[in-house]
Amino acid sequence: MMAGNGFAKNKDTSRRIRLGMVGGGEGSFIGAAHRIAARLDDEFELVAGALSSTPAKAHASATALRIAPERSYADYGEMARAEATREDGIDAVVIVTPNHLHVPVALAFAEQGIHIICDKPIATSLADAQKLAQVVRERNLHFLLTHTYSGYPMVRQAREMIAAGELGDIRIVQVEYAQDWLGQPIEQQGNKQAAWRNDPAQAGPAGALGDIGTHAYHLARYVSGLKVQELSAELSTFVAGRALDDHVQVMLHYEGGARGMLWASQVASGAVNALRLRVYGTQASLHFDQERPEELRFARQGEPAQCLRRGLAPASSAIAGMSRIPAGHPEGYLEAFAQLYRDFAQAWRKGTDGANGVEGHMPGLDDGIDGMAFVEAAIRSHRDGAKWTKLQAI
Amino acid sequence: MMAGNGFAKNKDTSRRIRLGMVGGGEGSFIGAAHRIAARLDDEFELVAGALSSTPAKAHASATALRIAPERSYADYGEMARAEATREDGIDAVVIVTPNHLHVPVALAFAEQGIHIICDKPIATSLADAQKLAQVVRERNLHFLLTHTYSGYPMVRQAREMIAAGELGDIRIVQVEYAQDWLGQPIEQQGNKQAAWRNDPAQAGPAGALGDIGTHAYHLARYVSGLKVQELSAELSTFVAGRALDDHVQVMLHYEGGARGMLWASQVASGAVNALRLRVYGTQASLHFDQERPEELRFARQGEPAQCLRRGLAPASSAIAGMSRIPAGHPEGYLEAFAQLYRDFAQAWRKGTDGANGVEGHMPGLDDGIDGMAFVEAAIRSHRDGAKWTKLQAI
Amino acid sequence: MMAGNGFAKNKDTSRRIRLGMVGGGEGSFIGAAHRIAARLDDEFELVAGALSSTPAKAHASATALRIAPERSYADYGEMARAEATREDGIDAVVIVTPNHLHVPVALAFAEQGIHIICDKPIATSLADAQKLAQVVRERNLHFLLTHTYSGYPMVRQAREMIAAGELGDIRIVQVEYAQDWLGQPIEQQGNKQAAWRNDPAQAGPAGALGDIGTHAYHLARYVSGLKVQELSAELSTFVAGRALDDHVQVMLHYEGGARGMLWASQVASGAVNALRLRVYGTQASLHFDQERPEELRFARQGEPAQCLRRGLAPASSAIAGMSRIPAGHPEGYLEAFAQLYRDFAQAWRKGTDGANGVEGHMPGLDDGIDGMAFVEAAIRSHRDGAKWTKLQAI
Amino acid sequence: MMAGNGFAKNKDTSRRIRLGMVGGGEGSFIGAAHRIAARLDDEFELVAGALSSTPAKAHASATALRIAPERSYADYGEMARAEATREDGIDAVVIVTPNHLHVPVALAFAEQGIHIICDKPIATSLADAQKLAQVVRERNLHFLLTHTYSGYPMVRQAREMIAAGELGDIRIVQVEYAQDWLGQPIEQQGNKQAAWRNDPAQAGPAGALGDIGTHAYHLARYVSGLKVQELSAELSTFVAGRALDDHVQVMLHYEGGARGMLWASQVASGAVNALRLRVYGTQASLHFDQERPEELRFARQGEPAQCLRRGLAPASSAIAGMSRIPAGHPEGYLEAFAQLYRDFAQAWRKGTDGANGVEGHMPGLDDGIDGMAFVEAAIRSHRDGAKWTKLQAI
Repeated sequence: MMAGNGFAKNKDTSRRIRLGMVGGGEGSFIGAAHRIAARLDDEFELVAGALSSTPAKAHASATALRIAPERSYADYGEMARAEATREDGIDAVVIVTPNHLHVPVALAFAEQGIHIICDKPIATSLADAQKLAQVVRERNLHFLLTHTYSGYPMVRQAREMIAAGELGDIRIVQVEYAQDWLGQPIEQQGNKQAAWRNDPAQAGPAGALGDIGTHAYHLARYVSGLKVQELSAELSTFVAGRALDDHVQVMLHYEGGARGMLWASQVASGAVNALRLRVYGTQASLHFDQERPEELRFARQGEPAQCLRRGLAPASSAIAGMSRIPAGHPEGYLEAFAQLYRDFAQAWRKGTDGANGVEGHMPGLDDGIDGMAFVEAAIRSHRDGAKWTKLQAI
Repeated sequence: MMAGNGFAKNKDTSRRIRLGMVGGGEGSFIGAAHRIAARLDDEFELVAGALSSTPAKAHASATALRIAPERSYADYGEMARAEATREDGIDAVVIVTPNHLHVPVALAFAEQGIHIICDKPIATSLADAQKLAQVVRERNLHFLLTHTYSGYPMVRQAREMIAAGELGDIRIVQVEYAQDWLGQPIEQQGNKQAAWRNDPAQAGPAGALGDIGTHAYHLARYVSGLKVQELSAELSTFVAGRALDDHVQVMLHYEGGARGMLWASQVASGAVNALRLRVYGTQASLHFDQERPEELRFARQGEPAQCLRRGLAPASSAIAGMSRIPAGHPEGYLEAFAQLYRDFAQAWRKGTDGANGVEGHMPGLDDGIDGMAFVEAAIRSHRDGAKWTKLQAI
Repeated sequence: MMAGNGFAKNKDTSRRIRLGMVGGGEGSFIGAAHRIAARLDDEFELVAGALSSTPAKAHASATALRIAPERSYADYGEMARAEATREDGIDAVVIVTPNHLHVPVALAFAEQGIHIICDKPIATSLADAQKLAQVVRERNLHFLLTHTYSGYPMVRQAREMIAAGELGDIRIVQVEYAQDWLGQPIEQQGNKQAAWRNDPAQAGPAGALGDIGTHAYHLARYVSGLKVQELSAELSTFVAGRALDDHVQVMLHYEGGARGMLWASQVASGAVNALRLRVYGTQASLHFDQERPEELRFARQGEPAQCLRRGLAPASSAIAGMSRIPAGHPEGYLEAFAQLYRDFAQAWRKGTDGANGVEGHMPGLDDGIDGMAFVEAAIRSHRDGAKWTKLQAI
Repeated sequence: MMAGNGFAKNKDTSRRIRLGMVGGGEGSFIGAAHRIAARLDDEFELVAGALSSTPAKAHASATALRIAPERSYADYGEMARAEATREDGIDAVVIVTPNHLHVPVALAFAEQGIHIICDKPIATSLADAQKLAQVVRERNLHFLLTHTYSGYPMVRQAREMIAAGELGDIRIVQVEYAQDWLGQPIEQQGNKQAAWRNDPAQAGPAGALGDIGTHAYHLARYVSGLKVQELSAELSTFVAGRALDDHVQVMLHYEGGARGMLWASQVASGAVNALRLRVYGTQASLHFDQERPEELRFARQGEPAQCLRRGLAPASSAIAGMSRIPAGHPEGYLEAFAQLYRDFAQAWRKGTDGANGVEGHMPGLDDGIDGMAFVEAAIRSHRDGAKWTKLQAI
C-alpha cells in the first residue's frame, strides 16, 4: 500500500480524514455543497485541491478555502502524484468536475491508492464505468458516488420498511424528477452550468436523462431494492438548438414483475427540484417528496395514511443514530449530503473492503455502473421506437 | 318529432326536465350519485325507471324513489316505447348500467327521440360508439357522457386558462388515476361492482383502462385541449385469476409536439380516488388533484406558486355563475356532477342542436368516441410490445 | 295538536316533509344553501314562503322557486296562520332572516305548532333565546339550529372519538374562525350582507362575535363535549365607523380543567372561511380544518399522525350511513348542511320529542341558548377589562 | 483592550473565530447544535471549553471534540481568566448551560472582554438581564442571543416584507408554539432535560413560558417589528407534581393598535415542535410554520395565496446571499442556526460596536431584555386574574 493513504492509517481514528478536491472552485454550487457536507459532522478536513482548470481561479479559490498554497495544484494529475508522496497526503479525493472528467480523474487518484468520492453520473459510458470499477476494486479502495438523495433519513426509512416486507410484494414504482431551469435556452445565453450539461463532449450522450434521470432511477432502485430488467423509453428535446435531451419518459419492468414509470424533465415550468418517489406493494404504499424530506407518507390499503417523520416512525436500524437534532427541527439537503460523508467516514475508519456494497447504505460503484446501464438502455430503446430493451447485465 | 320529448316543449322553461333511469337500483353508487346530481339544482325530476334487471328489485327501488308504479318498468325497451307515447313522457333517459348495455339502451331511447345521459365509457368498442353517435346525430338529440370530473370548477378554470394561453405552448401533460379497491380478488369473493368490471362480457375488453383510464384520458384532453396522436402502452394484471387489466401505463404524443404519461391503476395500495392532472407549458404549469378539488396550483417559471381556489382565481367566463356557495365553503364531487346536469339542462332549454361540441363544456359523443379510440389503441400497442400506435381518427 | 303539522302525520313516512321559508329571497346565499340542503336527500319539498320583506321581490322569488302563488306570503305572521289551517300546510318553517327576526318569526310559527329550522344565532339576547325555548318546548316541537359545520362527517367522527376517550382527558381546545370579507368598510358602500351584520338593530349587540364567533364556540363545544365555565375576552373594531366588533379574542375555562382560546375575525386579510378546531387530550389530538373538511388529523403522542378521511377512519356509529358517495369522492359544505336536514327529517319521522338533545347529533335549542350565554359573557368580560367572567347557567 | 479578544484582532479576517463553550457536553442537544452551526460556514473553530460541571464528563467531552487537554477547564471562571491571557485565546464564549447560569457565566467572560453567544432566555429575571446588558455595553462587546428561528430565510423574508409595508398596517399577530414532550411527568422519571426545566432554581420562575413562550414572543416581535404594550395572561400546569407552568395562553396589545394571541404548550399531545406565526395587515397576511421552514404563505385580500419559498420570493435584501444551496434543495434548522453564527461573524469581522441592534438582524441584548419583560408581565397578569398588564419599559 502506497503513500500513506491506505488502510494502515485508518487505525488512527481520532484525526479528521484529509480531503482533496478536483473542480468545485468559485461559483460551483456542488463543490460548496460537498465542502459543507464534509464539514458538518467534523470528520473531514479539506487540505488540497485542483479547484479549477483556470490556474488563477484555482488559486484564488484555494486561498479563500484556506488551503495551503503548495497544495493548490494547477493539474489533477500532478495533484494525485504529489499528494501520494506526502506523509500528510490526502486520504480521499472529491471529484466535482463535469461528467467527462469523472473517470480520468478517478483513475489518476485510484492509481495512487487514494480513495474516491465522486459526483454522479460516474461516467459518460457504461464501458468507462466498468473500466474504472475494475481499477478501484483491484486497489481495494472506497468509492462514494454522491447520489445525495439516498442520504435522507426518510429515504432510508422507506428502504428499510420495504426490505422488511411492510409493503408486501412490490407491484408499482413511480418516480419522477421535474425541474424548470432549462425551460429556456440559457446554455446559449452564457449560463455555464447549463452549457456543459448540454455539450455532449462534456456531459456525455444524455442530457436530462444523465443529469437527473439517473438520480430518479437510483432513488427508485435504492428504495425498492429491485433491479430493472427492461425498459421502454422516449427522449425529447423541447428547446430549439439544444444538442441533448431535456425531457425523458420511461416505462420499466422491475424484477419480480413490478411495473413502473420514470419521468425526468428540466423544462417543467414551475417545478423547482421536484424529485418524488412512490412505491406500492400488495399491502401498502410509501410516498417521498424531496422538497419535504422530513415526511414520508405510509398508507396501508383501506386504512388512514400515516405521516411518518424523522423521529416519529417505526423503529429503523437504518436511521438509528442518523439524527443530529430532535424531531420537529427540520433537517435538509445538506444534512442528507453529510450522511453520505458519514457513510464514507465509517467505512474508512472501519477499514472495510472498499468494494461497493460492503458499506451497506453508501452508494458506490455498482450504483454507478447500473446508472450507466440505464442511460444506455434508454437511449437504445428511444432509437428503436420505445421498444422494450433489456439493461445490460452488470 | 314524437311523443313530447322533442325541442318543441323546450319552450316551457318553468318546468323540471323529466328523467327516466335505466339501471341504478338499490346498492348502485352511481345511480344514487346521478339522482342527487339531477336534484341538486332543481332542474330535473325522476319520473320513470327500469332500475334493475331483477323485477322485484326494480319495483322496490322505484317505490323507494317515489316513482309511480305504472312507470316502473321491467324492461328498458318497454320503457322507451311506453314513455315515448305518454303526454308527460320523459325528456331524457339516464343510463347507469354495466358498460355492455350502454349502446343498446341508448339506441332504444334514441330511436324514440328521447335525449340521453349516459355513464362512461360510452361503449365497449369504437365501432359501437360510432354507430350510436350516428343515430343520435340523425335524431338531433342531446347526449351527455358523464365524465364527472370535467364538472369541477377548477377543472374548467384550468381548461380556460390553457385555452387563453396563460401557460404558453403546452409541452407536457401528466395524468394519473390511482385506486386500490381491486388490490385483492374481490370479484371472486362476491363483490358485484368488481365482478362486472372484471367480466369481459359486461365490461368490454378493458379493465382499469376502461373504468378509470378513460377518465384520466378525458381529463387530460378536456383540460389541455389537445388531441392525442399516438401512444405506447402496457397493460398489466396483477391479481391472479383476473380476466382484465388492473393497471396500465402509457406514453403519449399530443398534437403540437407535447409529450405525456398516463397511469391508471386499481391495485395501488393506499390510493383511494387519486386522479391528478399536471399540465406544463413554456411559461407555467397547472396542477389539479381530484381529492382536493377546490384547489388549483398555478406556477409560473421562477415565480412563487399560486393557490387558485374557486372564488379566488383570475376571472373565468367558464366558471362565472358556477358557484352555488361562496369561496371557502367547499364544494365536492356531487356539485361537479350536478354541473354536468346543469350543462345538459341549459342545452335542453336553449333547444340547441344536440350534436356534441355545440354545448361547449358538456362532454358528449365526441368524447365518448375519442375514449374508445384511446382504449383500442392502448390494447393494440400493448399487444405489439409498446409500439407507438396511432389513434384511429374520429 | 293543530292544523296538520303535529306528530300524527309523521306516520306517513313516504311523503316529503313540507317546508315554508321566511327570508331567503333572491340574492340570499344562505336561503339558497338551505334549499339545496333540503333537496339533496329528497326528504323535503318547499311549498310556501315569505321570502322577502319587499312584496315584489318575495313574489318574484316564489315564482322562480315554483312556489304556488297563493302560498307566497307578504308577511310571516299571515303565513303562519294560513299554513296552519291548510290540510297540506307546511310541517316546518325555515327562518333565514337577519338575526333580530329569528325569535319573533320562530314564535309566530311555534304558536301554530309548526316545527322550526332556524339560522344561528338563535336570538339577539339570552333572555329572548330562553323565552323562545320555553314556547318551543311547551309545544313539543322540533327545533334545528343550523350550525352547519356540525354536519360534517369528520366533525362527527371527532366528536365520537373524543366521547369514546381516544384522546384521553381533554386538556386544550383551540378554535378559530378567520375571514377577511369585512376588512374594508363595505357595509358603508352598499353591501347588504355586511350592512345588516353591522347594524345593532338587526344583528344584535355582537358583530363578528355573533356571526362567526358563535360558530367557532359551537364547534368547540360540540366536538369536545365540554361546557365552558368562564372566559376572558376582548372585542375589537378595526374598521373605522363600524358599530360592532369585527375581531374577538377569548381565553376559556372548560369544565374538567381544560383551557383554550377562541379567535374570530372578519378582518384577517387572506383568510377566506378558515374555521379550524384542535383538541388535545392526555394521549392524542385531533385537528379539523373546514376548508379541507374530508380530512381529520389524529396524532397520538410520540406516534406518526394519521390522516383520517371519510371512509378511512376508525369505525364510528355517528357517521355510519352518513356517506352518500365513497371515500375519495369529496363531499363539502352543502352535504354537511344536508346532514342537518337529515337529522331533522329523522327526528320528525320518528316522532320523537322535539325538545333538543333528544335528537342526538342535531344542534337545537340548548346550543342556541348556550351560544347566547357565550356572547353575553364575552361582552361583559370585555367591558370589565378581560376579567374572568362566568357564563350564565342555562 | 485586553487579552487578544478585542477588536484589534478583527483585522485579521482570514482566520477562523476562536470559540470556547460553557456547558454542552455529551448528551446535550443544544451544545451539539451550536457546534454544527458554528462549523457549517467555516468561520469558527472550537478551541476551549468548560463542557460540564462534572470534571470527568467535561474532559471526555473535550477529547471527543478534539479540544486540547490544557484548554478543557473544570470551571468557567478559570476558563475566562485563562483564555483572556493567552495570545491565541478565545474570541467568544458560547453559553449553553441551564438558564440560571446564563448571567453569571456571561458576566465572567464579559469582564474579561470576551464576546458572548448565549442561549435564551438571557436570564431568569428582568433585573439580571438589565445588569448583564449594562456590563456588555460598557465593554462594547458583541452579544448574540440564539433565538434560532430568527435565522430562517423565510422568517427574514417575512420581516422584510412587513417592514416594506407589503401587508399594509398590521392588525393581527397570532403566534403559537406547541410541543408534547412534557405531556407526562418525565422530569420525575429521570429525564435530565425535563428536570432542570421544571426546577425553579435552575429554570427561573417560568416553565413553558420561558422555554418556548419566549421563542414565540420573540418571533412575533422580530417579524412584525412591533412592540408589545400590555398583555392578559394565564399560566397552567397540567401535569401533577410539576413546579412550573407547562401551558400558557396570552392576549396581547401591540403598539399601533394591533391585537394578537400567543399560545405556548409543552403538553399538546401530537405536536412536535409546532412554532407557527401568522401576521395580518390591512392588505395581506403571511404564515410561517417552523416545521416547513422553506415555505411562506402570502395572501392578499381577495387574491390567490402565494407559496413563497427560498429562491422563489420577491427580492429581499435581507436574504440575498443567505442561501447556500439553490431553491428546491431544502435547508433546515441547522442552517438557520448557522445564520445566527454568520451574523455574529459578520459583526465581529466588521468590528462594529457590539451594542445590540447595530448588527441588524442578529438577536441580542434588547431581545433578551424584552423577553424577560414579557415573562414577568405574564406572571403578574396571571396572578391578577388575567388583568391587562403593561410590559416594563426597556
